[in-house]
Amino acid sequence: MAQPERNDSINDITDYVHGLGQAARLAASAMSVADTAQKNAALLAMASAIEASAPLLLDANSQDMKRAREKGIDAALLDRLELTPARIESMANGLKDVAAQDDPIGALSATTRRPSGLEIARMRVPLGVIGVIYESRPNVTADAAALCIKSGNTVILRGGSEAANSNQAIAACVQSGLAEAGLPTSAVQLIETTDRAAVGALLAMDEYVDVIIPRGGKGLVQRISDDAKVPVIKHLDGICHVYIDEGADQDRAIDVAVNAKTYRYGICGSMETLLVHRNEAAELLPKLHSVFSDKGVELRGCKNTLSELPTITTATDADWDTEYLAPILSIRVVDSIDEAMAHIARHGSSHTDAIVTNDMGRARLFVRQVDSSSVMVNAATCFADGAEYGLGAEIGISTNRMHVRGPVGALGLTTEKYVVTGDYTVRG
Amino acid sequence: MAQPERNDSINDITDYVHGLGQAARLAASAMSVADTAQKNAALLAMASAIEASAPLLLDANSQDMKRAREKGIDAALLDRLELTPARIESMANGLKDVAAQDDPIGALSATTRRPSGLEIARMRVPLGVIGVIYESRPNVTADAAALCIKSGNTVILRGGSEAANSNQAIAACVQSGLAEAGLPTSAVQLIETTDRAAVGALLAMDEYVDVIIPRGGKGLVQRISDDAKVPVIKHLDGICHVYIDEGADQDRAIDVAVNAKTYRYGICGSMETLLVHRNEAAELLPKLHSVFSDKGVELRGCKNTLSELPTITTATDADWDTEYLAPILSIRVVDSIDEAMAHIARHGSSHTDAIVTNDMGRARLFVRQVDSSSVMVNAATCFADGAEYGLGAEIGISTNRMHVRGPVGALGLTTEKYVVTGDYTVRG
Repeated sequence: MAQPERNDSINDITDYVHGLGQAARLAASAMSVADTAQKNAALLAMASAIEASAPLLLDANSQDMKRAREKGIDAALLDRLELTPARIESMANGLKDVAAQDDPIGALSATTRRPSGLEIARMRVPLGVIGVIYESRPNVTADAAALCIKSGNTVILRGGSEAANSNQAIAACVQSGLAEAGLPTSAVQLIETTDRAAVGALLAMDEYVDVIIPRGGKGLVQRISDDAKVPVIKHLDGICHVYIDEGADQDRAIDVAVNAKTYRYGICGSMETLLVHRNEAAELLPKLHSVFSDKGVELRGCKNTLSELPTITTATDADWDTEYLAPILSIRVVDSIDEAMAHIARHGSSHTDAIVTNDMGRARLFVRQVDSSSVMVNAATCFADGAEYGLGAEIGISTNRMHVRGPVGALGLTTEKYVVTGDYTVRG
Repeated sequence: MAQPERNDSINDITDYVHGLGQAARLAASAMSVADTAQKNAALLAMASAIEASAPLLLDANSQDMKRAREKGIDAALLDRLELTPARIESMANGLKDVAAQDDPIGALSATTRRPSGLEIARMRVPLGVIGVIYESRPNVTADAAALCIKSGNTVILRGGSEAANSNQAIAACVQSGLAEAGLPTSAVQLIETTDRAAVGALLAMDEYVDVIIPRGGKGLVQRISDDAKVPVIKHLDGICHVYIDEGADQDRAIDVAVNAKTYRYGICGSMETLLVHRNEAAELLPKLHSVFSDKGVELRGCKNTLSELPTITTATDADWDTEYLAPILSIRVVDSIDEAMAHIARHGSSHTDAIVTNDMGRARLFVRQVDSSSVMVNAATCFADGAEYGLGAEIGISTNRMHVRGPVGALGLTTEKYVVTGDYTVRG
């Protein structure tokens, strides 16, 4: 389907984005009733198109990389932007994985029968039109399209300007897959102008867009949340804690803590603060110090931590509220599980928090009382991820309380409707 | 618990409402882990307090009624405002009904076991702090409090100024019930100033309030949605349709249509437009006309309807988009179920729409394709109601797509968290 015309004045950009919105809304009703087989055929055709177009994708990406290098963009961003044959293969495999998942749409809940004789059930249905705003990683173009198609939604994508050529090449593969399966190509549309006014238009377009999902740094997410008239599935801070309880197996607890911190420093599920029961501190902290020193992780501790590890830095008040996303860890010694949970309630971001314990009662207390989107027992916080939870893929992790919390897969992009069946039943 | 001090300057009102917010947030963690028995004890104590305070409630209400009459408020609003011994009894019984419901909080979903060895489940937890803004009915004070307590939330209530004395008297019973059960009285707080600035402060207070639920006319709901920084569970239009399919049992179809229109004209589930298959029109429309004439319902029809019922008014374009909430019905003759569904997609409000049919295939098609919060087969649209669906009580009906759709009971006031259990499990 041809994209609407566009040029660079703000009014024209608003018109252009509205045109995408109208097309997305129109396609939404076809997508909402598309058969599972048809949606899966589209996903597999997209995967084939991406595999077959690998040279084209590499070429488009090399243009983006060249421009990014000329602009002096930093190494981390260049790494996120880069496509390699392996990354292209992994993008295609991601599409096949989503095709292999169960179709959430059309599933009916258990039915209750009411005194009126009515049978009441709920049917799972798509949200409608989803806007995804993301930064440099081009693979999000394919991943987000796949999850939206699987869940019967349509999507308007707005990628980072530095990845414009890569995103357009991937979107072309996505649309050819849709066309091959007989689905509307406007089910997945890419905003092709890099003008920022397009984001403003998308955020304000509540007649055509049902939800916005920003993927990127906290600054981007906060700006989008502040400006949007449309509901936003947000992903803000991940200030994650591990609490090592009295009586935990020390060596295995250290393995969990080290994994939670060092699996990858930059992910939201990375541990930022370790809480240690005081009866474990004297023996455990020196061992931890030795492992973290070998890994190059800087430790910052409370007064009681420093009495065991006098060579480390003192943690300031700000440390307890900081998401380092870096090889830095703050450590606090606590007198009890209650003190640990109070620390998490005060300083945590309700993302992912874990207890390491052998005590069943305290595990249950922690699970019930800690108000985080993922609460873990004897597992490293870095597991907070849609693939690890069996969602197949994730479009993001929600720190909202409403609608969906934690990793968001295809199911998080759906809602329900009531299905009420009677026998010419009237209300008395 | 003493209410924070207040007086009438805008700054002081903002401070006052912030004080309520802080107290609500503090109480939220106690409420989130309150035992089922304790919450039910509070609900039953509230019911007893309301029964025992009936004379006080009637007295407070008579002051509100007197002032409302002096202000020349209309009969419909006076009726909504009035408390009678029977209404007080019914309010107390509503509390007992909520006490008898299952506690949604703490329920764990089925667990999946992942290749990593982790077990993944989801636990149902409260949303947190709920703001309810409502108009004249004082019983909402008790109903909203009951659903919020049952679901482990705390609530800030803002009732209509005309019901101020009644609401305060009911809130006192609610708080005495909380105190008797050992729960924090600040779990349910009533905004005691009638200044409108208090509503603005409540809508902006996203650090303390997780969701706002407005109950009232469309104007109120729209204003609140426009102004709120906090997510809103909205209830907007109910433009509901009944489609009588080819081959339906005519006399029983007429019963359903008449019930859908006349059960109560003012409810959101009331039918506003009837769609009739053309092969049924000649026989069915004159019968319908006769029944509706007896009931005093004005009919407005399309051209084809008028060829069967030449004495009725012609429906204008505006009729198809109007929620009458009155004894008026628009009727359209359609060639097929597809035309009926296209009419509903174009003119409906995605609230409640019904098909009357004996054909299994068309029933399934209608259920799958019509995008409304309730889709009904052979049932009158006026059944769209939490009590009829078995939710026990409802705090409103949601026309949102996100989070909760249709009648909202205690379950709609909850969210989930992931519970992840391992054996000192690390990510490889």
